[in-house]
Amino acid sequence: MMNYTRRTTLDAVKDLTVEELDFLFDEEANSIGMLLAHLASVERTYQIVTFENRDLTDEELNEVNPGLDLGGNARDQIKGNPLEYYLEKLEQVRNQTIAIFKTLPDEWLFEQAPFWWDRPANNYFKWFHVFEDELSHRGQIRLITKMFRKRKESIK
Amino acid sequence: MMNYTRRTTLDAVKDLTVEELDFLFDEEANSIGMLLAHLASVERTYQIVTFENRDLTDEELNEVNPGLDLGGNARDQIKGNPLEYYLEKLEQVRNQTIAIFKTLPDEWLFEQAPFWWDRPANNYFKWFHVFEDELSHRGQIRLITKMFRKRKESIK
Repeated sequence: MMNYTRRTTLDAVKDLTVEELDFLFDEEANSIGMLLAHLASVERTYQIVTFENRDLTDEELNEVNPGLDLGGNARDQIKGNPLEYYLEKLEQVRNQTIAIFKTLPDEWLFEQAPFWWDRPANNYFKWFHVFEDELSHRGQIRLITKMFRKRKESIK
Repeated sequence: MMNYTRRTTLDAVKDLTVEELDFLFDEEANSIGMLLAHLASVERTYQIVTFENRDLTDEELNEVNPGLDLGGNARDQIKGNPLEYYLEKLEQVRNQTIAIFKTLPDEWLFEQAPFWWDRPANNYFKWFHVFEDELSHRGQIRLITKMFRKRKESIK
């Protein structure tokens, strides 16, 4: 499911230009580039949460931000990058995830720890959350691309 | 995963007004109401595909459309309904799905049949696709709501 999700994300962003990746449909929008950076940051965060069973240090929070929290800082800082910049980040973090997955037994998926609002959640749920978040943003990426092209057309 | 997905969809549309449900951000847009109708139509379609192992009849295609295909016909016909209208459709079809799921053994999930481009896919994948489509549209619903409120604010 993670692989399928990623493939559809890559399809959705295929050949996007820097202008398309940076497009903000209004002043509170997230650009597609910001959303791609967010996906890599979420995955890095869940590596630490599930592989190391701990919260992020301040240093690690700085590394995954502004992509993780998005908002104004992300809007200021995440722009001007070609598609490859985001794809490399995504691939790098995914390769780490797969490498660690390979060392873990299936039972690890069902290990529980206190999670949102201190309720027990297993690692299967946490990684489901990683890809359900990606699917949600993939839907947004498709919509933002459609809006961008529609506006471009109407300006012509 | 289907239940979690649905819960987040319901959270995303909670208390939306008819105006919000009908909002079209441009002339080729899907409204939130259209997307909710689409979710119910997709689920009904996959009931037939996986529980009855066949394609839809013309009569059934008429029933699931214009929600399934979206586009201009859906834009013309799916509007003016309160939230409850969509929620009832979603609940009705979901109740049918759960009722049938309860009669099926786990092995049913792994039964394969030719699917997209005639390649084998099991029922687990087909129902994953139902909820991955919902997650994608849930992301869009969140974004459309945000755009609507932002535009309303800027008109004030």
